[in-house]
Amino acid sequence: MGYSSMSKEALSELLLTLREEYNQYLSLGLSLDMSRGKPNREQLDLTQEMLGVIDTPDDCFTENGIDCRNYGLLDGIPEAKRIFADLLEIPSGNLIVCGNSSLNIMYDMLVRCMLYGSAPDTEPWVKQGTVKFLCPSPGYDRHFGICESLGIEMITVDMTPKGPDMDTVERLVSTDPTIKGIWCVPKYSNPDGITYSDDVVRRFARLKPAAKDFRIFWDDAYIVHDLYPDKKDRLLSLFREMHIAGNPNIAYIFCSTSKISFPGSGVSVVAASDSNIAYTKSIMTVQTIGCDKLNMLRHVRFFRSAEGIKRHMKHHADLIRPKFDVILSIFEKELEPCKIAKWTKPLGGYFISLYVPEGCAKRVYGLMADAGVKMTNAGATYPYGIDPHDSNLRIAPTFPPLSEVETAAKVLACCVKIAAAEKLIAEAE
Amino acid sequence: MGYSSMSKEALSELLLTLREEYNQYLSLGLSLDMSRGKPNREQLDLTQEMLGVIDTPDDCFTENGIDCRNYGLLDGIPEAKRIFADLLEIPSGNLIVCGNSSLNIMYDMLVRCMLYGSAPDTEPWVKQGTVKFLCPSPGYDRHFGICESLGIEMITVDMTPKGPDMDTVERLVSTDPTIKGIWCVPKYSNPDGITYSDDVVRRFARLKPAAKDFRIFWDDAYIVHDLYPDKKDRLLSLFREMHIAGNPNIAYIFCSTSKISFPGSGVSVVAASDSNIAYTKSIMTVQTIGCDKLNMLRHVRFFRSAEGIKRHMKHHADLIRPKFDVILSIFEKELEPCKIAKWTKPLGGYFISLYVPEGCAKRVYGLMADAGVKMTNAGATYPYGIDPHDSNLRIAPTFPPLSEVETAAKVLACCVKIAAAEKLIAEAE
Repeated sequence: MGYSSMSKEALSELLLTLREEYNQYLSLGLSLDMSRGKPNREQLDLTQEMLGVIDTPDDCFTENGIDCRNYGLLDGIPEAKRIFADLLEIPSGNLIVCGNSSLNIMYDMLVRCMLYGSAPDTEPWVKQGTVKFLCPSPGYDRHFGICESLGIEMITVDMTPKGPDMDTVERLVSTDPTIKGIWCVPKYSNPDGITYSDDVVRRFARLKPAAKDFRIFWDDAYIVHDLYPDKKDRLLSLFREMHIAGNPNIAYIFCSTSKISFPGSGVSVVAASDSNIAYTKSIMTVQTIGCDKLNMLRHVRFFRSAEGIKRHMKHHADLIRPKFDVILSIFEKELEPCKIAKWTKPLGGYFISLYVPEGCAKRVYGLMADAGVKMTNAGATYPYGIDPHDSNLRIAPTFPPLSEVETAAKVLACCVKIAAAEKLIAEAE
Repeated sequence: MGYSSMSKEALSELLLTLREEYNQYLSLGLSLDMSRGKPNREQLDLTQEMLGVIDTPDDCFTENGIDCRNYGLLDGIPEAKRIFADLLEIPSGNLIVCGNSSLNIMYDMLVRCMLYGSAPDTEPWVKQGTVKFLCPSPGYDRHFGICESLGIEMITVDMTPKGPDMDTVERLVSTDPTIKGIWCVPKYSNPDGITYSDDVVRRFARLKPAAKDFRIFWDDAYIVHDLYPDKKDRLLSLFREMHIAGNPNIAYIFCSTSKISFPGSGVSVVAASDSNIAYTKSIMTVQTIGCDKLNMLRHVRFFRSAEGIKRHMKHHADLIRPKFDVILSIFEKELEPCKIAKWTKPLGGYFISLYVPEGCAKRVYGLMADAGVKMTNAGATYPYGIDPHDSNLRIAPTFPPLSEVETAAKVLACCVKIAAAEKLIAEAE
């Protein structure tokens, strides 16, 4: 029975039962962590053999005879560029293969925009006064953290089931020249697991910004991170669409193997138009002589091809799918009948996004913390850590073992019910 | 016989002979490269076994149980910090172990100064108008490249055999608040191979800058890069001295294993005071979740200790010492009697610094290029690539095989003689 149709008395009685259940969880002395999108050990073991593929000196050379142990190759080794070119369906000349962190290359890209401008013929953003970014939300807390750190003002844009609210994006971008960029996680978005529709991608490709130095930061973090073998989202290529639209310089595209090989020792990639890549390299060459080429070579020798990466990802999916499924089935059983929450049922990515009644997310987070289950901070999925509805919670089920995920989901369902009942009782008073 | 005491006629005759010798070199169709401080393949092979030391999943854990394959540990793994702490004689809490490039961390450090300020209570340098750096010269071209790229004005300070001219450094730093920093390669300096004297280090530690946000960028790139087993320079610890002087925040100290393990896949380190490290980490945490910990672990398992690194460096020295020696002996035989040039005889590092007659460095560089021997650009060792005396040439003997180094040194001696004779003849006209 939906909570909203229950009387205050019935709710109060229910709350007593729920608190009993909650107290039982408390007595378990749990210590679980569902706060970060982190692969678990079994997933990491899938890539273990990669560490042994380079052994002798002769193993260390690229196909064109470059010694990967030595200096050189600012934009990465050719065979790694080719694999990512296949994976992203972007010409290898439009790629730079970098070090272990796409977060780092996104940060560095924004720093270059701040200090040098986003193109050779533009002013550095630091010299332009106020700089603003659009932040489709809920979104990735670390994206927002970069903006906050660099003093870039964030404007929240709502997410829809097909991607960011493009009417709002188009209106703001076309009229406000202080809006210099937008963060996007276009496939299996963090945290909603939404993949942008073809129409949304095309509207991004055709944006006509008031700021000519505007850039889309397109974080394709979950490009091959499907959960189900026969149901997967397909993302239209922004790279292709922006070229078709005659708008080739509008976006930087990022991806990495953090959740394919090793989060701590993966490789990352940035892709962009010819002129954006040339410009980026002209500044990067001052910063470094090159990223770790041996690690690129390890990835090439282990995965062999884009197809090899896709095959590998099926094993990841097999390991984490049950964790998503158990949460969804507990939510369906425990929360569905109460009509107090909604949640996403993603086909890929790393998160389930849970929407509890307005004003209840922090309460649920606190109840979870008290019960020993660490969640991503309530509010973290919004700019400045402030969820205007205090409603969204990000669930990251991959790291704990399945049994712990199951327990955590049960505790979570209980906490959501408590918070919802408390709210309805308070409202009835 | 010294060229300067020769008649114009004798010089002209000599020049004909020299040009004949040069033409013979031309006819060899050489293609040699002595332009960059790059280890050669034999040196890289010394570290080959490092690539195999991590194999099984259990190998991937730190001493305190952190899985290096996964996210985390912004400041590096504890065992790597300990080894570098021993090597640098700096407490491990004052270190951050980073990725494969100390150039990258120096660049990033300067970027943080530009965008955030060099300390929490100071203005970002981009908001302070003109920012200047002192550049002891000849120096490292990539240091100067960072300043030029970021729009930091460079002021050349002369090098002396004991380090930078400290009278000038102290006078400028204490009076001009727009001077925000200085580049130093304090041991086996690039390119002169000079190690700063104890007095110079102490004067750096006691600097009283007009700018309270002034920082010394202390690039200890050649900390264990001795060439001779029984003759080595000793550098006083700036870290200790600046703490003794009550000036703990004045410097950032950098080093890396680029020329210890692999230039493309080493680890780098930044060291600083408690408050500088805390401040740096507070910004770095926005940029990355952490650098490649597996590669840190490889270094730890292979080298085992600071002593292990020092032992390893003796094998490097054995490989590159003959290359330095052959150049020095050719210079002694070919150039010494002519009294036209001087050069350094370093006890370590990667370079020999050659001073040809004023106005002749570019000419020598051009003659060398025409003969198929690539040198570091004449002027590259000075800010903006302009050597005020057009005199200094940096010789990087490590990369080519010994036989090629010998040939290149002979060609170089010949080219120096030609340029010197040409100059004296022109002056006599």
